[in-house]
Amino acid sequence: MSLNPVEHSVLDAIAARWSPYRFEPRIVEPEKLIQCFEAARWAASSYNEQPWSFLLAQRENDDSFKRMLACLMEANQVWAQNAGVLVLTVINTRFKRGGKPNRVALHDLGQAAAHFALQATALGLQVHQMGGVNLSKIRHEYEIPQGYEPQTALALGYPDQSEPSGESAVELKQRESGPRARLPVREMVFSDKWGDSANFGAP
Amino acid sequence: MSLNPVEHSVLDAIAARWSPYRFEPRIVEPEKLIQCFEAARWAASSYNEQPWSFLLAQRENDDSFKRMLACLMEANQVWAQNAGVLVLTVINTRFKRGGKPNRVALHDLGQAAAHFALQATALGLQVHQMGGVNLSKIRHEYEIPQGYEPQTALALGYPDQSEPSGESAVELKQRESGPRARLPVREMVFSDKWGDSANFGAP
Repeated sequence: MSLNPVEHSVLDAIAARWSPYRFEPRIVEPEKLIQCFEAARWAASSYNEQPWSFLLAQRENDDSFKRMLACLMEANQVWAQNAGVLVLTVINTRFKRGGKPNRVALHDLGQAAAHFALQATALGLQVHQMGGVNLSKIRHEYEIPQGYEPQTALALGYPDQSEPSGESAVELKQRESGPRARLPVREMVFSDKWGDSANFGAP
Repeated sequence: MSLNPVEHSVLDAIAARWSPYRFEPRIVEPEKLIQCFEAARWAASSYNEQPWSFLLAQRENDDSFKRMLACLMEANQVWAQNAGVLVLTVINTRFKRGGKPNRVALHDLGQAAAHFALQATALGLQVHQMGGVNLSKIRHEYEIPQGYEPQTALALGYPDQSEPSGESAVELKQRESGPRARLPVREMVFSDKWGDSANFGAP
């Protein structure tokens, strides 16, 4: 598996993380799965609120897996059906203490999801995250209480590393290489005002 | 520096990441800073949109640093003034192609911020993130364009590892140990419905 074309040295897991569209249809060992959640658990959050929660479906539990798969948009079901694990993410939109709205709950869920994905990569797994889920169906199916909001889905599994073949090979290759490019740093980091590229102290 | 009390093996950077309230007042080497942004750059995002951007102020540029410090809530200025680097985060609220609202832009910023923080930890630095910023002041100061929204701030630097001393020592110790605890996994990962703890396939 080739690494991301990083321009400066970064953590191995960051260099090797990507979002596959093809998984081997095999289970994920529970101990590895728990390690991914443990990683998520230690993400930073505003006031250490930990506004994230997760719904889990493992491939080895066929009913549970199919029930969760049906909560994804159809285009995602096509490839996510081969994942070893599906996860739905949920945020608590208010602080437990005081009940004020937590403006950054979704942000902090993102941090937990990033930890989850990096831990997966370190274990030889990969995660493909999806915004394309049926939010109202999830709320109903899993009885999400008021004040909590479903957000995204994660497919976790062993990426299928074989060369794509058959009719869709070219399309699949393009689709898989797309996510492995990024905007240059100069379009992402600014200094005096938004849009003015930072020079990082270079003269 | 003690590690987080993790219950399952996780990446070194995840076990060692925390949010200090005390930094050594020293600069961060530009090469290390660039590595942190490079790590952020490789975060996952919906449709690979990369909805994040960052405003940077380095300690060695006194005017720039003080200008950004003044955009934090006063309670955060007290400790963040010792950081080596300040960063303000901004999201693009709409997809570049098509202009539809990006429901998960804030989530994906969180992923980039988590990458940034973990890379920092791997380099011997730490990040303390803040939601407590003056959003309207940031928008005005840095000329954030319409459709973009400032969100959080990051203080990056070398944590002050000395024992807290003086009048506020006890309070500081409590404050620093608070963020190093987490809810148990059973309160975070559910299966059949929200609130039912997952058993990860245990019989």
